[in-house]
Amino acid sequence: MSKGALTRRAILEHAFSLASQAGLEGLSIGRLARELELSKSGLFAHFQSKEALQLQVIEYAAENFTRHVALPTLRTERGEPRVRAVLENWLRWPDQSGAQGGCFFVAASVELDDRPGAPRDRLVELQREWIDFLARVAHGAVSAGHFRGDMDPEQFAYALYGTMLVTHQYRRLLGDPGAEQRARAALETLIRDAVAAPAAHP
Amino acid sequence: MSKGALTRRAILEHAFSLASQAGLEGLSIGRLARELELSKSGLFAHFQSKEALQLQVIEYAAENFTRHVALPTLRTERGEPRVRAVLENWLRWPDQSGAQGGCFFVAASVELDDRPGAPRDRLVELQREWIDFLARVAHGAVSAGHFRGDMDPEQFAYALYGTMLVTHQYRRLLGDPGAEQRARAALETLIRDAVAAPAAHP
Repeated sequence: MSKGALTRRAILEHAFSLASQAGLEGLSIGRLARELELSKSGLFAHFQSKEALQLQVIEYAAENFTRHVALPTLRTERGEPRVRAVLENWLRWPDQSGAQGGCFFVAASVELDDRPGAPRDRLVELQREWIDFLARVAHGAVSAGHFRGDMDPEQFAYALYGTMLVTHQYRRLLGDPGAEQRARAALETLIRDAVAAPAAHP
Repeated sequence: MSKGALTRRAILEHAFSLASQAGLEGLSIGRLARELELSKSGLFAHFQSKEALQLQVIEYAAENFTRHVALPTLRTERGEPRVRAVLENWLRWPDQSGAQGGCFFVAASVELDDRPGAPRDRLVELQREWIDFLARVAHGAVSAGHFRGDMDPEQFAYALYGTMLVTHQYRRLLGDPGAEQRARAALETLIRDAVAAPAAHP
């Protein structure tokens, strides 16, 4: 990496961590320059505007998530093992991401849902990609013969996403040490439902 | 209601709606005074500090939620009907609450999870009360003989809460018109799991 690329990387790492706590609107170029001991003009050379900075922080977050959650999941056996792996890798993300606050994507979603613009558009695109990924993992369990053929992978993705959102809430806001076990139990309910023949549940 | 009480009520209604969009930190006494055409000193007479205002907005939100979601739920038949009613009443809350943004509690949770203080403490207390309410509704379905005796009401509350969090995400961020149907389908999965004898799911 060139010195410029290293500096850019360091800025994004710090900005990502800050945004997980103070939100994307909390990312001022002045604050970043101060905390990283860089000149404001140096920061402007990397990010021409606050929106450009926000967009690149979103990309950084997406790459971080892909590296720590999506890729390790794809390296596991397709089917039910991969369904379990996605939850485990996702649960570990807060510790691995380098963020000091809660989940970057949860914070960004609440912040941007009312605010049209390029950052919101990109966030929506990334969320849809992730939901598609989850649905494909569930569909893979159908192909592997682990889930019944008429289960709904999109519904599974929705429910798994909900499990992670409430786990975030129990962990971050309520400080519940049992949140991860609840997440695993919730996944078992979803798996049982995806495995069982519908006739077994009148 | 006295004139003072009416004014106070109008301030809280407006502040609650604003906070659902701009967050509790977005609630400045100056902004509220301007938008409500009141004097800043008049506002200070009602709320001595920003924190006092935030705390009273949290109380307002809780009363609003109780009126529109919890109380109508308690007026339905105990057991499975009440479990379904809690979801339906909760799904309707955004339209009934008068908030212009997303869910007040989702926004406040993300905002306050990193910020110790009286508003966070009160929010945590309210969230725990709501989770207890959900668990009692599930337990009521056990008492009514609708759910099996060894189902876990706390786990049910957790999963139902997750369903609502992801529904909020699909509605607000993704603009998905099918979010409510997904929420209902997710609840049916939870109910099937709570009804079925564990032996039926090896």
